[in-house]
Amino acid sequence: MAEQGKQGGATGFGPDYVRAISPYVAGKPIAEVAREFGLDEAGIVKLASNENPLGMPESARLAVAEAVAELGRYPDANGFALKGALSARFGVPADWLTLGNGSNDILELAAHALVEPGQSIVYAEYSFAVYALATQEIGARAIEVPARDYGHDLDAMAAAIAPDTRLVFIANPNNPTGTFLPAAQIEAFLQRVPRHVVVVLDEAYNEYLDADQQYDAIAWVRRYPNLMVSRTFSKAYGLAGLRIGYAVAQPELTDLLNRIRQPFNVNSVAQAAAIAALADADFLRRSAQLNRSGKRQLTEAFERLGLEYVQSSGNFVLVRVGDDDGAGARVNLALLKQGVIVRPVGNYNLPRWLRVTIGLPEENAAFIAALERALA
Amino acid sequence: MAEQGKQGGATGFGPDYVRAISPYVAGKPIAEVAREFGLDEAGIVKLASNENPLGMPESARLAVAEAVAELGRYPDANGFALKGALSARFGVPADWLTLGNGSNDILELAAHALVEPGQSIVYAEYSFAVYALATQEIGARAIEVPARDYGHDLDAMAAAIAPDTRLVFIANPNNPTGTFLPAAQIEAFLQRVPRHVVVVLDEAYNEYLDADQQYDAIAWVRRYPNLMVSRTFSKAYGLAGLRIGYAVAQPELTDLLNRIRQPFNVNSVAQAAAIAALADADFLRRSAQLNRSGKRQLTEAFERLGLEYVQSSGNFVLVRVGDDDGAGARVNLALLKQGVIVRPVGNYNLPRWLRVTIGLPEENAAFIAALERALA
Repeated sequence: MAEQGKQGGATGFGPDYVRAISPYVAGKPIAEVAREFGLDEAGIVKLASNENPLGMPESARLAVAEAVAELGRYPDANGFALKGALSARFGVPADWLTLGNGSNDILELAAHALVEPGQSIVYAEYSFAVYALATQEIGARAIEVPARDYGHDLDAMAAAIAPDTRLVFIANPNNPTGTFLPAAQIEAFLQRVPRHVVVVLDEAYNEYLDADQQYDAIAWVRRYPNLMVSRTFSKAYGLAGLRIGYAVAQPELTDLLNRIRQPFNVNSVAQAAAIAALADADFLRRSAQLNRSGKRQLTEAFERLGLEYVQSSGNFVLVRVGDDDGAGARVNLALLKQGVIVRPVGNYNLPRWLRVTIGLPEENAAFIAALERALA
Repeated sequence: MAEQGKQGGATGFGPDYVRAISPYVAGKPIAEVAREFGLDEAGIVKLASNENPLGMPESARLAVAEAVAELGRYPDANGFALKGALSARFGVPADWLTLGNGSNDILELAAHALVEPGQSIVYAEYSFAVYALATQEIGARAIEVPARDYGHDLDAMAAAIAPDTRLVFIANPNNPTGTFLPAAQIEAFLQRVPRHVVVVLDEAYNEYLDADQQYDAIAWVRRYPNLMVSRTFSKAYGLAGLRIGYAVAQPELTDLLNRIRQPFNVNSVAQAAAIAALADADFLRRSAQLNRSGKRQLTEAFERLGLEYVQSSGNFVLVRVGDDDGAGARVNLALLKQGVIVRPVGNYNLPRWLRVTIGLPEENAAFIAALERALA
């Protein structure tokens, strides 16, 4: 029982690369803002976390009520019923599917299953914060490729792939900027990526794409054994509180993810609700429609106020609220005091911008009114 | 974009240590056994996963129904309300608490946050399978210490700690054997462990301990900055399907876990249900009583049948069903055909044994009857 290596004491535990991580900062919960600013919860508008303003579909609510009978049991570790539904939807066998505790879980499983400490992971500037966190967590090297017009520069990303690169994260649409990559660009990128490098195509906001933007990523999965498509039920499907996402990839990749997946990573309620939501085409259609009109409502206001914003293909808009690096934090605080929660994006190195989730018409209006006061 | 290192192809992705993992084998779900053996689900008895046979407490069911209103929102990433309840219960500040997607999540967070590839983790032979999985996942070296009478040999475990050991897993009571370590032995062990080595004391079955076995692990957490106590709501609290567990440790350790914790790892329904269940002393008392009488029911039958079993302090009993290494699998199959699901433990190198969860009196009776037929 020799003592050696790191000594105990104030910061003695864990690898340096873990101690260097800054934890993810989530959108402020309504209850927390109410406590902090002495506001009434009922009057608070939360447009901070890209949730569906319609909430959960009624179909999923019914499924949850049924699932409650069996919550003393562990969930089905293999997600038989939900994988069956996804399998039928996408025309892929069940062994092409991995269920995650949200797609956040899928992204982390990919990093853990595919990359050793010291190897590198490629992702874009201004892309989802979890890519950087997953990279840091495993002691991998981040290759962050500068954005072009706030979106992914796929040529630069292909060129940035290093001999030790094992994983590339692509978000389409991208969060927090909302930028969109047309199918042809992604396919050209897939053709350039070496076959031993896995591409995770994160499509968390896929269901919000306009008809003329839609493409068949699952067809690419059939052609590229190194492609994994990641999706979530947290956004358009309205199940953020339940935590469920999934990945589609060929069996070799899927098998690797499942070796390290926590066997009961997806709770029973989420599995039941996802099956119902997946079948609820009407809810998805209404959600997309509401999002389109809300996007117009927000962007028209930004134009009227002379605020720069990024064209968004998601359920949120990135808007520049000032010309100095204190602008985002300042306007955010002014909004919070009025009971409006949006997302500051200083942690994305976008300190002059705010990311606003598209809400219900009255929520958008409340945000716009509060923003005008904040800017006055 | 040089190509180098591993080539694409049939087994090209991921580190060797990930490709070497055998995934966790969960207890067979009732629906799967019904499909496989052509049985009616309603007639199947599942005593395979150490769930509470009372299911979920009514108090938690009511909390779930309320939580359903907000499932379109992300969960509270910081678990404010549940941490408040745990904090009040244990008299520790909220920054001593980590919430996990089941305590499985806590165990994996500990390995990921504390151990680099190549460093070692110490755990006991015949202890919970997730310790080995978490070790393999991160490319760490396992030091598995031979059991004594199917339980932890703490002297041998202390002696086995190597210069590169960063983590020790102790289960009390142990799963799958049910063995119990008295408080004095654990405390003596804690005194011997170097301060830079973290001890995770996994108390998933703590709530089933008899009054004369109970001890105050939280008091040890106050004294040992390298101790983390892990607990779950999946067993006595009856919330296995929702996925929620927690860790108690001093802030330095807690902070490390939170750096790599997925921000929304615990769903909203689980948080709400756990608050209710934690306050439901009556349900816990009834569960422990039911478990005590069920344990007598099973062990009296084993004695009558002349079957060796291990004295259990959990909600399950490990029983030897034959003298040859095919016995466990053979008797398990014979039970499955009768619609009784228990847990074979060949993967624990206990091929002559089965682990049986203590169920309702009628479930235990059905298992005993099926076992007699299987052995005849």
